[in-house]
Amino acid sequence: MNQRLQSLTEWLKTENIDAAFITSSENVFYLSGFYSDPHERLLGIAVFQDKEPFLICPALDAHDAKQSGWEYEIIGCSDTDNAWDIVAQNMKSRVEKVAKMALEKEHINLERYEEILKRFAGASFVAAEEKLRELRLVKDENEKQILKKAAEYADFAVQVGINEIAEGKTELDIIAAIEYELKKKGISQMSFETMVLTGNNAASPHGNPGLTKIKKGDLVLFDLGVIYEGYCSDITRTVAYDHINDEQHKIYHTVLKAEEEAVKAVKPGIKAKELDQLARDIITDAGYGEYFTHRLGHGLGIGVHEFPSVTNTNELVLKEGMVFTIEPGIYVPGIAGVRIEDDVFVTKNGVDVLTSFDKTLQIIK
Amino acid sequence: MNQRLQSLTEWLKTENIDAAFITSSENVFYLSGFYSDPHERLLGIAVFQDKEPFLICPALDAHDAKQSGWEYEIIGCSDTDNAWDIVAQNMKSRVEKVAKMALEKEHINLERYEEILKRFAGASFVAAEEKLRELRLVKDENEKQILKKAAEYADFAVQVGINEIAEGKTELDIIAAIEYELKKKGISQMSFETMVLTGNNAASPHGNPGLTKIKKGDLVLFDLGVIYEGYCSDITRTVAYDHINDEQHKIYHTVLKAEEEAVKAVKPGIKAKELDQLARDIITDAGYGEYFTHRLGHGLGIGVHEFPSVTNTNELVLKEGMVFTIEPGIYVPGIAGVRIEDDVFVTKNGVDVLTSFDKTLQIIK
Repeated sequence: MNQRLQSLTEWLKTENIDAAFITSSENVFYLSGFYSDPHERLLGIAVFQDKEPFLICPALDAHDAKQSGWEYEIIGCSDTDNAWDIVAQNMKSRVEKVAKMALEKEHINLERYEEILKRFAGASFVAAEEKLRELRLVKDENEKQILKKAAEYADFAVQVGINEIAEGKTELDIIAAIEYELKKKGISQMSFETMVLTGNNAASPHGNPGLTKIKKGDLVLFDLGVIYEGYCSDITRTVAYDHINDEQHKIYHTVLKAEEEAVKAVKPGIKAKELDQLARDIITDAGYGEYFTHRLGHGLGIGVHEFPSVTNTNELVLKEGMVFTIEPGIYVPGIAGVRIEDDVFVTKNGVDVLTSFDKTLQIIK
Repeated sequence: MNQRLQSLTEWLKTENIDAAFITSSENVFYLSGFYSDPHERLLGIAVFQDKEPFLICPALDAHDAKQSGWEYEIIGCSDTDNAWDIVAQNMKSRVEKVAKMALEKEHINLERYEEILKRFAGASFVAAEEKLRELRLVKDENEKQILKKAAEYADFAVQVGINEIAEGKTELDIIAAIEYELKKKGISQMSFETMVLTGNNAASPHGNPGLTKIKKGDLVLFDLGVIYEGYCSDITRTVAYDHINDEQHKIYHTVLKAEEEAVKAVKPGIKAKELDQLARDIITDAGYGEYFTHRLGHGLGIGVHEFPSVTNTNELVLKEGMVFTIEPGIYVPGIAGVRIEDDVFVTKNGVDVLTSFDKTLQIIK
């Protein structure tokens, strides 16, 4: 049994939970290596304290599930089967009475919950999310290598975007070029909607990419990431087009300093909130505290926003294997919007920075 | 009160439901004109039998909600508010005792349901989906115009794709070019992941676009759609590259005939299943029945798959204003994959076809 299933099983024993039924595509992928979006059909993995787990999926996907390496029972459901009856039968054949079941309460909908309730009357239900987040929080070496590769594609994408900058091009022109070049490399999914924002759009907390044209004197902000083998990257760089004024210069270098100092401070043993505070203090000391309107960063993995959340209240102590973004920003309406973001991996003694695109202020001519 | 809210209110009265709380972005948009993806935050519209509705959204979005034309109360929640307490207070200030509440059971998750249960102990909960699907089933003139425009962008996208066909280009190259040209026109969201499949990939029910290269003698299948002002289009065209063999020719013209005859048959009063059967019979008579492995079509609107479902069992009688796809296909592994798809609008006496890209067999040289 893989380490992840093993850990979940241990948790079931500790908490005296008879079964966990995991239904989100992300967590099914995490536990099995099988990724599938089943739309309205049922996909799930049932895990028990001391019985073998099983995976249920649409019949059409059963072959792919097998190929992905899942070693236990795979139950393919056709559209004429009652998937919930099949889940219940298979659970009950392993555990006579399921008195306590773990579900992803943020994922399972009320319709599905009612189907479960009908078949497990009297059972109690606990949330599986916290445990799964905790498991996913620490990445292994294989995950690190995939995340590193995802970050390299993000670096590449920023370079494509910068190469496209020219008078009169729109934000969407640049996004189109970035995604075009990524697709040519076989990357067809972004980890979120690519953001290219120019001038006042970058300086607004509500900026959305559109037909705004780049003009000289603009700061152009790129925020993007790709999905590579199921894992996400996320990078932000801000560059100037043609020239930059003194205040923009000051803002850029304040953000850069906050970012670099926070990255340098990453190591096992320090708290997430200390990183946020360190960056926030640098920005506040420069007089821009009120314009840094978000947390310093967020965890990254199969999800583009996962744990740990790098806020100034999170007491979480960093451990080797955690992966998150560091992305301070300053947004002064009408003046400048600058954000710089890297993806970092906590190593035994410090940090590996997964993204590597140059952060020196670039003035594109 | 707009017609949509009015209809929902009438339903609440008929079914003796005290309140509906609608939380999916699509249905909130349908009822209010306000589209927002609130991620994990709460977005919802509460509707009552004879009190004014209210909209609750993240505080940051309250301004946009106002701008979108919602005329009733808007409650902006900050991250430190308890959104569920606010919902409960505002519901109870309008209706003393909510004994029966309608929720979107496929949308609301168990975590949220438990929050509601805590505050409305003893209430019963009914599904709101069926009613909302019924309301959305018939489109008005304004929706028709938007869908027509979305379809025009889909026509344009197919032309871009065809122009890109050349020896050695990959499926992803072509997708990149299509989305690039759309972005330059300001269209940044596709209604689903763009499919360009060539040769054997198009002939496989599991084909996914990738780095497969186009070669002479391939049939190239385009299946794509855009989101325009919140509404989806969906078109499929299949063209040949350089040459085509006799069986491919026969398959193409069988699909074309099935598609054209089904489109011609659309009018108020006939059943959805009759359309499917008509197309299916043509394909079966040509000897390819077992290779037409899916339903004839699906409804289209704010969602890319909505009602009506055009299957050979759906007894639904078509009415003016319904919008759906007609997309017969034949997939013979190793030989050919052909699908042709239009979006149609049921008019008073017949049909308006929203997509208009030429369906004559095109052999690209």
